[in-house]
Amino acid sequence: MTLGEAAEATGGRVVGDESLTFERISPVHDAGHRDLAMLADRRYATDLSGCGGRALLVSEALCGLEGGPADRVVVADPHAALLDLLPLLHPEPPRERGVHPTAVIHPSVVIPDGAGVGPHAVICAGATLGEGVRIGANCFVGEGVAIGAETVLYPNCMLYGGSVLGDRVVVHAGSSIGVDGFGYVTSGGEHRKVPQMGGCVVEDDVEIGANCTIDRGSIGRTVIGAGSKLDNLVHIGHNVTIGPRSMLVAQVGVAGSTRTGAGVALGGQAGISGHIRIGAGARIAAQAGVIGDVEPGHVVSGYPARDHKTYLRAMASLMKLPELVRRMGRLERRLGERDGA
Amino acid sequence: MTLGEAAEATGGRVVGDESLTFERISPVHDAGHRDLAMLADRRYATDLSGCGGRALLVSEALCGLEGGPADRVVVADPHAALLDLLPLLHPEPPRERGVHPTAVIHPSVVIPDGAGVGPHAVICAGATLGEGVRIGANCFVGEGVAIGAETVLYPNCMLYGGSVLGDRVVVHAGSSIGVDGFGYVTSGGEHRKVPQMGGCVVEDDVEIGANCTIDRGSIGRTVIGAGSKLDNLVHIGHNVTIGPRSMLVAQVGVAGSTRTGAGVALGGQAGISGHIRIGAGARIAAQAGVIGDVEPGHVVSGYPARDHKTYLRAMASLMKLPELVRRMGRLERRLGERDGA
Amino acid sequence: MTLGEAAEATGGRVVGDESLTFERISPVHDAGHRDLAMLADRRYATDLSGCGGRALLVSEALCGLEGGPADRVVVADPHAALLDLLPLLHPEPPRERGVHPTAVIHPSVVIPDGAGVGPHAVICAGATLGEGVRIGANCFVGEGVAIGAETVLYPNCMLYGGSVLGDRVVVHAGSSIGVDGFGYVTSGGEHRKVPQMGGCVVEDDVEIGANCTIDRGSIGRTVIGAGSKLDNLVHIGHNVTIGPRSMLVAQVGVAGSTRTGAGVALGGQAGISGHIRIGAGARIAAQAGVIGDVEPGHVVSGYPARDHKTYLRAMASLMKLPELVRRMGRLERRLGERDGA
Repeated sequence: MTLGEAAEATGGRVVGDESLTFERISPVHDAGHRDLAMLADRRYATDLSGCGGRALLVSEALCGLEGGPADRVVVADPHAALLDLLPLLHPEPPRERGVHPTAVIHPSVVIPDGAGVGPHAVICAGATLGEGVRIGANCFVGEGVAIGAETVLYPNCMLYGGSVLGDRVVVHAGSSIGVDGFGYVTSGGEHRKVPQMGGCVVEDDVEIGANCTIDRGSIGRTVIGAGSKLDNLVHIGHNVTIGPRSMLVAQVGVAGSTRTGAGVALGGQAGISGHIRIGAGARIAAQAGVIGDVEPGHVVSGYPARDHKTYLRAMASLMKLPELVRRMGRLERRLGERDGA
Repeated sequence: MTLGEAAEATGGRVVGDESLTFERISPVHDAGHRDLAMLADRRYATDLSGCGGRALLVSEALCGLEGGPADRVVVADPHAALLDLLPLLHPEPPRERGVHPTAVIHPSVVIPDGAGVGPHAVICAGATLGEGVRIGANCFVGEGVAIGAETVLYPNCMLYGGSVLGDRVVVHAGSSIGVDGFGYVTSGGEHRKVPQMGGCVVEDDVEIGANCTIDRGSIGRTVIGAGSKLDNLVHIGHNVTIGPRSMLVAQVGVAGSTRTGAGVALGGQAGISGHIRIGAGARIAAQAGVIGDVEPGHVVSGYPARDHKTYLRAMASLMKLPELVRRMGRLERRLGERDGA
Repeated sequence: MTLGEAAEATGGRVVGDESLTFERISPVHDAGHRDLAMLADRRYATDLSGCGGRALLVSEALCGLEGGPADRVVVADPHAALLDLLPLLHPEPPRERGVHPTAVIHPSVVIPDGAGVGPHAVICAGATLGEGVRIGANCFVGEGVAIGAETVLYPNCMLYGGSVLGDRVVVHAGSSIGVDGFGYVTSGGEHRKVPQMGGCVVEDDVEIGANCTIDRGSIGRTVIGAGSKLDNLVHIGHNVTIGPRSMLVAQVGVAGSTRTGAGVALGGQAGISGHIRIGAGARIAAQAGVIGDVEPGHVVSGYPARDHKTYLRAMASLMKLPELVRRMGRLERRLGERDGA
């Protein structure tokens, strides 16, 4: 692709030679002589000096920076530009269709046109598959599971019986969906399991990372709202409702029966207690431990989680606390002396 | 099932029409017109107004609440009532018996009557299976693994060679048991692996969630005590002993050689350092970081973990610290002036 | 093995009967009458009284301790001694070679001599395998994956297309490598996926625990440096560079584009934000939340992470804060009275 074509595809402009060609896009520190180096963040400007790229993809804000390739494609937002450029550079390979002979599929299951089922996949009785579904190798699709159109399961996924996935859902490798929730009634120190009979619904356009665990409801349902994105190793407890268009970063855990509004953002390793409500648009900082309701739009951090700015200010002053204790002692002594006097 | 039958099965009483029937039990906010809506917690009373359920399963404490279905089954503890009702409403499907033709089983392995082995499961030499064992699809059972009676492995589980599981153990999808521990001897910056030759013992009636990892001992054994329950994504390091009847909530991590007493409760995402002891009945709050021994029955939270109440009180006063610093400054100035005077 | 042979193999000395034999090595509290009990840490000295072992493997520092077996093998470092003794006691079983008939391997793939491919493994087009590679049961090796010599994949691992593993790499069960990173461009509340087209490189002698997730680059590469060791359930985001010879303890998470130097140590459940740098030899305490750069060799803990000693001192004084507030009130009252006087 030439710089000129790249500029045209992204609504950007070229500074330098429009006819220069590149084969792929790489970060500045990692770019080779056939690469278009991408600089989206000022903090990586220091990498420019050693940049081996043929040309630079850069934002208007940073296009004046010295060093690095002189030939540049200047765009409003380099990340957004990737949405236009990468599909052109790396056209999606033709998807495998049809059913691999080693797959084990119950005779009651209808495989729609354009669907693909990989080696050693197992699909149980009563499962329904939408058009263009792709089931990866070694996946297990339990009894009565319903999977919508164009949904993709990467290899080694496990869907418990009765799970429902919408259209265009993506589930990455090793995730377990519709798992029994963690529900026991304890008497005399013994834990008796409460049967987990509820549903697990993953709505349209959800993407679920690798090795995640999403529990079914005990009674009722667990719901992952449409358009939400889960990173790797996320845990969702039973009867949780995650609102639509939310972002859950890696290793987040949400305990049972909690409900979140639309468009929430949960930072990496954040933990949310059970039976609480997180308002729409709330943002939970990384590693925060939320043990009470959060108002819509609020930003919280720490354990127990509090207003983000207040928490950071408090933690900053905490570092001065040992000195404060000394100052307090001095004051008390001075006042004591004056009384003694 | 009728409300009358439900009351009889649970030792409860009916308020209203005993002959009303329902097909399943759902949470109040999620109940349809054929459902018995369950209300176990006052905080969900606000859902009553919009409740679409045909009748209400409610505790004595809450049975007087206005709104929602007038016909009610009143019980001492709705959660305990589920133990009686759900098996009647959802009788367990007949389990699949026999060995699927695609399973790969070493000739030395004896499959007992009533056992079931799913598609593409692999069982290695010297493994022993108890009566009624069920091995899910794509499971791997390593050399010499011993599995007790009525134990269930959900699909895609991996048991390393030599692991020992007791009777009535349940292992959910994607869990890895008997993994090499994280043991290295570092010299000159290089990490040399200490061979992990110990055992991994999961005692009777343990339930292990999805995508958990439990290490074998380096030397000696890792032991999960009888009747303990592990949620999803829990990590147990090598040579750990978890006492019987303990509860480990999702994403807990326990580092090597730590020993816990009977009936401990580890909250979600809590981390326990290696080589320490947690006394019987101790409770570790969610996200706590425990770096020293905990006395039996104590409740701790925070990092480093301290008495739960003390920690929460300290964190509350922490929020006032910036103001305290200002007050200190004022005091010092006043005292300075008076000295100057 | 006799105590004499053990002493010779480890450069240690025998106190007592050189001809005593043992069959395995166990921790003091867990040792049976045919075991060599190992005591490496003073805190386990209390286990000596009840020790059932035939003899004791102990360090010079502890060899004088009373109780337990009188016949002893005394060495400089018992853990290092295990490196010599365990391979002699437990010779590695002959590895399985050849391709299991149930494996599904693309005709373009060449299986080198001495390689082993387990039941139901899947190897896609263009994958290259080094000498002596072992691919476990139910593993998935994607298109164009390159695996170096003597590398071992335990069962149920998933390698996304294009992943590159070096020589002598070990990947434990259920890990997913080369996963799509968590990259979206959000506009109008909708999250549009940025295609994840980069590489994932795991260099020589890396060991990766069970159920880990390692993302590929979005553009550019994710790199796990040579000789680094990852414990179970570790998450590595896209475009991360982990320096060589690093140790990442269980449940660590490293967010996108962060770079760490050589020989860093990340404690259990620690979280590292994206786009930061961790200097060579830095140590991050368990559960720390790092949101800014860390200088080489520094030790940090807490959230937000700060100098370890400073943080622990501050947390200690924090527990005195409620009392400090009371003292402050008393001082203010006293000064008020004196002014009133």
